[in-house]
Amino acid sequence: MVEERLAALPTPDDLEVARLGEARIPSPLRGSGTRFVDDTNKVLACSEAGEAESRRGRGESLPAFEAAGPRSDLFFDPDTTGCGIVTCGGLCPGLNDVIRSLFMTARHQYDVRRILGFRYGYAGLSSKNSYAEPLFLETETVGRAHRLGGTLLGSSRGAQDPNEMVDTLVAWKIGALFVVGGDGTLRGASRLCGEIERRGLKISVIAVPKTIDNDLMWTQRTFGLSTAVEAAQLPIAAAHNEAKGAWNGVGLVKLMGRHAGFIAANATLASGDVNYCLVPEVPFSLGGEGGFLSTLERRLKKRRHAVVVVAEGAGQDLVEHSAGAETDASGNVRLRDIGIFLKERIEGHLTSRQMDHTVKYIDPSYTIRSLPANSMDSAFCQVLGQHAVHAAMAGRTDMMVGFWNHRFTHVPLHLAVASRKELDPHGEIWQRVVQTTGQPADMMG
Amino acid sequence: MVEERLAALPTPDDLEVARLGEARIPSPLRGSGTRFVDDTNKVLACSEAGEAESRRGRGESLPAFEAAGPRSDLFFDPDTTGCGIVTCGGLCPGLNDVIRSLFMTARHQYDVRRILGFRYGYAGLSSKNSYAEPLFLETETVGRAHRLGGTLLGSSRGAQDPNEMVDTLVAWKIGALFVVGGDGTLRGASRLCGEIERRGLKISVIAVPKTIDNDLMWTQRTFGLSTAVEAAQLPIAAAHNEAKGAWNGVGLVKLMGRHAGFIAANATLASGDVNYCLVPEVPFSLGGEGGFLSTLERRLKKRRHAVVVVAEGAGQDLVEHSAGAETDASGNVRLRDIGIFLKERIEGHLTSRQMDHTVKYIDPSYTIRSLPANSMDSAFCQVLGQHAVHAAMAGRTDMMVGFWNHRFTHVPLHLAVASRKELDPHGEIWQRVVQTTGQPADMMG
Amino acid sequence: MVEERLAALPTPDDLEVARLGEARIPSPLRGSGTRFVDDTNKVLACSEAGEAESRRGRGESLPAFEAAGPRSDLFFDPDTTGCGIVTCGGLCPGLNDVIRSLFMTARHQYDVRRILGFRYGYAGLSSKNSYAEPLFLETETVGRAHRLGGTLLGSSRGAQDPNEMVDTLVAWKIGALFVVGGDGTLRGASRLCGEIERRGLKISVIAVPKTIDNDLMWTQRTFGLSTAVEAAQLPIAAAHNEAKGAWNGVGLVKLMGRHAGFIAANATLASGDVNYCLVPEVPFSLGGEGGFLSTLERRLKKRRHAVVVVAEGAGQDLVEHSAGAETDASGNVRLRDIGIFLKERIEGHLTSRQMDHTVKYIDPSYTIRSLPANSMDSAFCQVLGQHAVHAAMAGRTDMMVGFWNHRFTHVPLHLAVASRKELDPHGEIWQRVVQTTGQPADMMG
Amino acid sequence: MVEERLAALPTPDDLEVARLGEARIPSPLRGSGTRFVDDTNKVLACSEAGEAESRRGRGESLPAFEAAGPRSDLFFDPDTTGCGIVTCGGLCPGLNDVIRSLFMTARHQYDVRRILGFRYGYAGLSSKNSYAEPLFLETETVGRAHRLGGTLLGSSRGAQDPNEMVDTLVAWKIGALFVVGGDGTLRGASRLCGEIERRGLKISVIAVPKTIDNDLMWTQRTFGLSTAVEAAQLPIAAAHNEAKGAWNGVGLVKLMGRHAGFIAANATLASGDVNYCLVPEVPFSLGGEGGFLSTLERRLKKRRHAVVVVAEGAGQDLVEHSAGAETDASGNVRLRDIGIFLKERIEGHLTSRQMDHTVKYIDPSYTIRSLPANSMDSAFCQVLGQHAVHAAMAGRTDMMVGFWNHRFTHVPLHLAVASRKELDPHGEIWQRVVQTTGQPADMMG
Repeated sequence: MVEERLAALPTPDDLEVARLGEARIPSPLRGSGTRFVDDTNKVLACSEAGEAESRRGRGESLPAFEAAGPRSDLFFDPDTTGCGIVTCGGLCPGLNDVIRSLFMTARHQYDVRRILGFRYGYAGLSSKNSYAEPLFLETETVGRAHRLGGTLLGSSRGAQDPNEMVDTLVAWKIGALFVVGGDGTLRGASRLCGEIERRGLKISVIAVPKTIDNDLMWTQRTFGLSTAVEAAQLPIAAAHNEAKGAWNGVGLVKLMGRHAGFIAANATLASGDVNYCLVPEVPFSLGGEGGFLSTLERRLKKRRHAVVVVAEGAGQDLVEHSAGAETDASGNVRLRDIGIFLKERIEGHLTSRQMDHTVKYIDPSYTIRSLPANSMDSAFCQVLGQHAVHAAMAGRTDMMVGFWNHRFTHVPLHLAVASRKELDPHGEIWQRVVQTTGQPADMMG
Repeated sequence: MVEERLAALPTPDDLEVARLGEARIPSPLRGSGTRFVDDTNKVLACSEAGEAESRRGRGESLPAFEAAGPRSDLFFDPDTTGCGIVTCGGLCPGLNDVIRSLFMTARHQYDVRRILGFRYGYAGLSSKNSYAEPLFLETETVGRAHRLGGTLLGSSRGAQDPNEMVDTLVAWKIGALFVVGGDGTLRGASRLCGEIERRGLKISVIAVPKTIDNDLMWTQRTFGLSTAVEAAQLPIAAAHNEAKGAWNGVGLVKLMGRHAGFIAANATLASGDVNYCLVPEVPFSLGGEGGFLSTLERRLKKRRHAVVVVAEGAGQDLVEHSAGAETDASGNVRLRDIGIFLKERIEGHLTSRQMDHTVKYIDPSYTIRSLPANSMDSAFCQVLGQHAVHAAMAGRTDMMVGFWNHRFTHVPLHLAVASRKELDPHGEIWQRVVQTTGQPADMMG
Repeated sequence: MVEERLAALPTPDDLEVARLGEARIPSPLRGSGTRFVDDTNKVLACSEAGEAESRRGRGESLPAFEAAGPRSDLFFDPDTTGCGIVTCGGLCPGLNDVIRSLFMTARHQYDVRRILGFRYGYAGLSSKNSYAEPLFLETETVGRAHRLGGTLLGSSRGAQDPNEMVDTLVAWKIGALFVVGGDGTLRGASRLCGEIERRGLKISVIAVPKTIDNDLMWTQRTFGLSTAVEAAQLPIAAAHNEAKGAWNGVGLVKLMGRHAGFIAANATLASGDVNYCLVPEVPFSLGGEGGFLSTLERRLKKRRHAVVVVAEGAGQDLVEHSAGAETDASGNVRLRDIGIFLKERIEGHLTSRQMDHTVKYIDPSYTIRSLPANSMDSAFCQVLGQHAVHAAMAGRTDMMVGFWNHRFTHVPLHLAVASRKELDPHGEIWQRVVQTTGQPADMMG
Repeated sequence: MVEERLAALPTPDDLEVARLGEARIPSPLRGSGTRFVDDTNKVLACSEAGEAESRRGRGESLPAFEAAGPRSDLFFDPDTTGCGIVTCGGLCPGLNDVIRSLFMTARHQYDVRRILGFRYGYAGLSSKNSYAEPLFLETETVGRAHRLGGTLLGSSRGAQDPNEMVDTLVAWKIGALFVVGGDGTLRGASRLCGEIERRGLKISVIAVPKTIDNDLMWTQRTFGLSTAVEAAQLPIAAAHNEAKGAWNGVGLVKLMGRHAGFIAANATLASGDVNYCLVPEVPFSLGGEGGFLSTLERRLKKRRHAVVVVAEGAGQDLVEHSAGAETDASGNVRLRDIGIFLKERIEGHLTSRQMDHTVKYIDPSYTIRSLPANSMDSAFCQVLGQHAVHAAMAGRTDMMVGFWNHRFTHVPLHLAVASRKELDPHGEIWQRVVQTTGQPADMMG
């Protein structure tokens, strides 16, 4: 919904997708009525006519993504190529749908015989770990998995030694590795590709982007967001009921969103019961006449209740970092819990004002992340998985499958992790949030 | 489901319900086809034939509850009697259904003109509070409230001075007060009745029992339990997905149940994914070969994941009380959070065993308590409200509406609060929990 | 909720449960901490104190059901006894829960080795049918089945030759057959018992009552009703939206209930959007000033929309039977579709009055019947299954498991099918329906 | 998901949006931090780089849609302009969200004072109708409406005399009319614009496209589809349970889709339980060795059950039209019910093969159409409503708001109704459907 702040347009060079070599093997899909995608088929990175015309005026070619889709000629021989799948990072609705689609496409369209699921994230590719051996995937294992949440392969956070990971891939004779994960995982995949290339191996690494926060650049949609926004309605309604049920009642809900407020903003719009929505992209202060606490106090005096939605990454400047920022196993900066922090500050403020109050804090994160995908996310995951397999078989590597201007695309990994997608504080959606909640556009005190 | 440990049978005297005076006013329901209940209509407290026959052998009469229902003669003249409604304590699915039913019955069946909703629990009856004035309830206010969770009147915890409360009732000319609340609230209602009687006033106080935990004696069912058990399935499934998604993953869910494990036990049975269910009625130890932690460790080594459901009142002997037990505003002993305590202990234990692990802790309490009632709870609430009004108009007081042996009854308040209903650790349901989870019957180390 | 019109109290003789012989084999549950139920343990059929006292006055003993539960001594040796399970009639939420509980109890509590599931109802017991052979049930087959609706064994309507059925049981060496079904199925089970006895065989037949309509006498609750009432809210809300969305819009929903309006009445109470509720127990006429059509017309003129809920068995006197009532394969009288009939009549009437109108008819039957059980139904099914196995192993036969006065009971089949449980048109629930809908108490024209 | 068969690219002329006159009034949004959209801001109709480059090579300009969004200068003075809203055709999830957004934007962003809701579709604009007077909309009326399904204004099918409709608009002093509806409604809006222009009036008519079938050209998404696909899962699961519960059980579900199979195809993909998906775009025959009936017969013999999903417009060539095609009030060709037709044909075929069978037919249409929008549809509706108001205030007319290449656009009505969007039988999604179901790609017998 045209809500994101985009990075500067990439150059045509940025958009070049790496290939392992020439594609010379006829696809087994020939003859099935499949319409193949030509390598020259591209999707414009920019759909604004003005930008296009002005580049044309300057004689520049228009930056465009390679279109995803089945190719008539393959690099890999499906008969002899092994495939691997690994899921990394936190749970996200749709993981099993992606695994299932990767498997189904490789097995039933390309007749790949050996498809392995590495267990518990990158740890399952590390030789140092005594973790379970990979699963040999079969239709029985993955057929119904999409009805359940979680990931049937298990997951873990954190990077592993690329060297060891390549050893594992070689040992299991893997030609194409499918990596499902977010920002940190994609960086890891990129390093893995570096090591593969250094050794002169022909192993394709294709990423399926997974971020429930929807904060990956150069894909306009990621799976799980739609499910998460729907699922956030229940805790918001709970917060509303708790708030209205008490004198000066405050219902506080923390939603996912480390760097981007897409879930919080969309959930706020869909709810209609939220009075304050706090996101990482829009700074606010606590103290001062125009700050959040005084604003909240005034509302309570008038309405006696308030509902606050806060993205987990909001107000991190307010939460005093311990000296030397901590990072988690994936290398993400560990955030202090803004929810608990806000709860304490609100209670402190209202107590100092001698206002009886009740603050109820709800953190639904795990309950949301572990859900099965809703239907539209589920269907979206299925296509992502198919395009990932098409790309790998055709010999692409070091890329992820994106969705751009209503089409599926190939996006080089270095481009995908070069910047983050964020909510535009001057864009449509944030203006709508401000109007819907009635919160001040500026709460900087 | 015959799961509770009952107190000793009450004596017939215990079952006598207090009356404000003789009922001489013809009910306005006459002529509407209503079938009235006779005062001699009683419901046996014990449905076991053996007990009945043996009492009969000893020439004793059988203890029986007064049956609830409309009476042909009233004590109060609906034309001139004001009614009050107050909801106390934490949220529970069905509160608005009860308010609605009390209102609808008083207004549309008995034509009571003045029906007031006191705001924010007993605090709204205290003169010291500057809380909002009572609401004058009308069909528009309460008509659709049952579709939403929470309580439209607001609530609060804690007792207030009975003297002030009577002053408020007198000031607002209330003849019948309907109190919706749990154990602590019922004790408060009883004290209020004492003060009313001391002053020689004719004010009826009728309670509708509210305990999502289902721990009130002499009623076999309370509203909200069914909704809560259903709603607990989502966080349990989440815990299961989180647990299976990690190496030595533990999903830990805390459910309601301060003194009784009915929600935890029923939710465990309905789920099928729970490996350990911990309730207040069944003690367990943490350490020792047969204790919970070693038991869990063994399972993780074998299965690599586990789901634990713990009732909030379980294992309170393990959680070190601070010297001098704290109580909350309602006089309930404040429990230390067993969920956080267990999470820390599990993590500590697994770390000491050098086992990589992930423990995800989910506390869905507010999200469950604030839900609208499901259909069966909703219909149950409607009947409770009707019987409360019937009882008040007929001049009963100092009682609550119960459900016993498939019939609605009048239960004196002193009897209702004399003991608590608990899960029977030797009863059917607990045996089924042990079989379903596969947990050891005894985890006392 | 004290809503049913009970048949006359049975005599103590009616309540005698058939036994195959003396129980002399020690139960394998001994030593497990199980609390056994004594054969003298009985549940009073009547919980009204007055009835009890008056019988006592006359020196009569009180009619009481045998209590369900595990016995310390068995008739069957679990080691050598084969068990069979069969599900009959239409789908009902909870069927798989019952199958699972029967299996789990027989296998994991009694260590029964051979447990067979006969396929597609009684047809699977008939030698004439070429239907699939029985399934040998194992934990893998039934473990997760309760999460899905339907029946994993398949079902069918209609009786089969008892002679052939006994032959099949003998051929498969079945000692205990568990039959899950309604009225017609129970009659079939009774005939089967007759044939077994005639041959002098020792085969137990235990029924688990299945009627989503809740119309079986001598059990106060049947599984599926609670799920059905909840699920009916969606089509009722749809009818309401369709009705309000059109000029003189009528939303018409047909709900289950061939002979009893429990689902329609409870769904109406839980909804609050229904304006007319039509059930089999309360006759109405179409024509005439006070009949349904004129009543509806008057409402439309005032409010421009109406929501009608009709139980499938309502108004059958109005629907002209074709000469010689048809019956379906189970011997149930085939009802003409009251929903389509009413839709046509309403449209005809409004057209004759020259009133523009839109009638939307919704028949959600299959969507409701096929649902998985909600949590409370699921837990209820689990207990029913356990008690059925306990009863069979102890040598009971020709009986069903009932639920009466908050306890589980043994009910002789002849008693269960002697009369039907119906809504009491003068009882509480119907009075509440009339008040909630605002419909005339009498629509006999 | 790149699934539609697009019409030929429009010419730049086709994309020209009609204007009522020069925009000279400063927008009240100035100074609020709103980022205005410039009239030169355009969105490329084609995101394929090759097409763009080749047009560039030929020196042609690229066809592009006018971008939607707030303009800094308005044609209408909000102070004196009245707005009207009308909803037409069948129910669709999100109608109330659109009404609410139109109202909220006009009232709270532009301070429009008079906002009228015309009742019951175009009928409410016809002088011949005695239908209710328009509602004067206020925040109280529309504030919570989005939580409910249906349309708070009512709707109707069918065209009305444009002359009378203009009279009504003039009589009520309407400057901007917002029309929410599908293909037929849009044609009606276009005729209305013709009459307005003929009279030289300055009345803007802006459409918000409503088609749950998603079959409108030049908008890649329409509201309600996502909700419908999700809601279709329940009846499909029911059909699956019914099918598996019977010997040769067939579960048959009819889903929306008169001309386009988007709902059926997406619901099939999301379900995984569907064995045959039939859509209007892909013809099939019933008889013959390779026809549907023989294909189904073979599956039943092997698997004993089957689930069939059929879009309402599928196989219309098979359903014998009565001589002279009928049309409904909106001018849509009235389709014979393919669901009932298929049910009869399947039953006939299996009977002729002497195969016992059970066919259960489910038509969930009204239950789906009347739902409230899910969160993502709800948020989408909100933006559509905002852009419609922005367009009207800026003086655009005879257009609808579209969504194209991830941006909101202005689409001339004549272009929108010139062709229909359909599923591409050679596109990705249909190929996935064939793979997922395992049905033959060709069932033409």
